[in-house]
Formats: sequence, structure tokens, C-alpha cells
Amino acid sequence: MEDKSYMDHAYKQAHAAGLRGEVPVGAVLVDASSGAIISAAGNRVEETGDPTGHAEMILIQEGARKFGRPRLTACDLYVTLEPCPMCAAAISFARIRRLYFGAYDPKSGGVDHGPRVFQQSTCHHKPEVVGGLDETRCSELLQSFFRELR
Amino acid sequence: MEDKSYMDHAYKQAHAAGLRGEVPVGAVLVDASSGAIISAAGNRVEETGDPTGHAEMILIQEGARKFGRPRLTACDLYVTLEPCPMCAAAISFARIRRLYFGAYDPKSGGVDHGPRVFQQSTCHHKPEVVGGLDETRCSELLQSFFRELR
Repeated sequence: MEDKSYMDHAYKQAHAAGLRGEVPVGAVLVDASSGAIISAAGNRVEETGDPTGHAEMILIQEGARKFGRPRLTACDLYVTLEPCPMCAAAISFARIRRLYFGAYDPKSGGVDHGPRVFQQSTCHHKPEVVGGLDETRCSELLQSFFRELR
Repeated sequence: MEDKSYMDHAYKQAHAAGLRGEVPVGAVLVDASSGAIISAAGNRVEETGDPTGHAEMILIQEGARKFGRPRLTACDLYVTLEPCPMCAAAISFARIRRLYFGAYDPKSGGVDHGPRVFQQSTCHHKPEVVGGLDETRCSELLQSFFRELR
């Protein structure tokens, strides 16, 4: 599978999350050596009432459970929106190899905006980061969700 | 109960976590109106193999479950160590009213160090912060844990 195909899979998770009334963000966790998708999830904040229920957190927790260890060094993570500081720090703790994200998030992002978590000396593992993959579509999905909310 | 008593409770959680082989960090979540302790926890990263298993995350997830909603606006959180960026952002998302922490964490902290999550324009709720409460004892517990590891 190619990067765009993984992001397409993440996009479908985002779309499904939006239909459930969640902010439409979706993600997939990929075993970088085999190319297999380990887990896929959309946001679940509204469904579970858990403010930490972002797609990336769900994947990291599921991935750790599946591998039986907290470090997911051979994994890549694809997510439709630039991670917030909570998810960026969790990605660092999980030792994710490479992070691909779709839309940039100037308002609440923590990778290329605000606290820029990976660029701090207090960050002890910085994944490779590819931002803006399939950006237009990921961004439009979020914009249309918030437009309908108003 | 006074602030020091809550931190004492958090300290006991930290101490118990250390005995389980976890980095000795403990926390309590308090209902600010009644003064009741809602939840108490120590780190559970090693036990669960979950890199996001910090004491603060466990409390926020438990608190949201107990109250049935993601916003814990009437709650204060006491933790023995300055929160990392992941926990700081989760504290912000949960709308925690006031954060008390014990030891400062220049190496990995995210409140007074590194990304200073609450000071960013991308942070949409900043709790009141009281740092250094019972600092010496909280700090010594961590130092002695890491000394024994070496």
C-alpha cells in the first residue's frame, strides 16, 4: 500500500466519526515492516465522554495492547489532522517511527503550531513528520463539519 | 482537607507506584465544591504496557466516566510531578479548574518547561497552576527511584 492509501483509510475513519457527531478526525496505525494496518479509529470524545478520546490516543493504546509493550518503534501513524499537543506527546512516548498528517491545525495543533512539541529539548523522541498529505480533502471534511454545526 | 493533605494522598499513590516498578508519580482528582476525592492513581505505564498510562490521564479518564461528561470544570488535580505536555493538554481539554503539582520537571515537563502548553495561544483553557507544593518530598522520591535504577 502507498502512503495515500493509508491516508484514504484514515479519511474513511474521519468521515465515519463525523457521522457519529464527533469532530471528523481519523487515523490508522501501520506496521512499517509488513505494511499491515494494526488499528484504525476515529475520534470518540462524544461517544465515550472522555476528553482524551482522540483517534491517535486510541490507536496508541490499542497498539501497545496488541504488541504488549509501550514502545511502537516499528510503527507509522497516519492521521487526517495535525495532532494536538496531547497526541503529539503520546506519539513521542510511543516512539512512533513516522507521523503523516493531513490538514494543518493553526488553532489547536501541537506539531507545526503552538507548543511544537517535537521541537522542544524536553522531547526525547521526535518522529519523522510528513504534514499536508491529502490536505485539501481532510481539511474540507473538517470545514464542512464545523459549518454545519453553526 | 487542606491542599497539603491532598498532596499527601497523591504522594502515597506515587510511593505505591514506585514499589510496583513505575516512575513514582501519583495524583488525586478532587471535587472542588465538596472537597471529596473522586479518584486517586499512580502511574501504570509498566503494569499496562501503555505509554499514555500516566497518573493524570488515568484520573481524567476515570473522572469523565464517573461524571459522564468530558468536562471536569469543578475539579482540581493534585500531582506529585509537573505534568508532561500530554497530561497538560489533557488537563486543559478536561477544563480542570486548578492544578497543583509537587516537583518541577526541567527534563520532561510541559507546564513550566519545554512547550509550556498553557502559555500557548493554541491552549483554549488554562487552569490556575500552583507549582512546588510539597516539592522537596516529591522530588526526593523521584531522585531516590532513579538512583536505585542505575
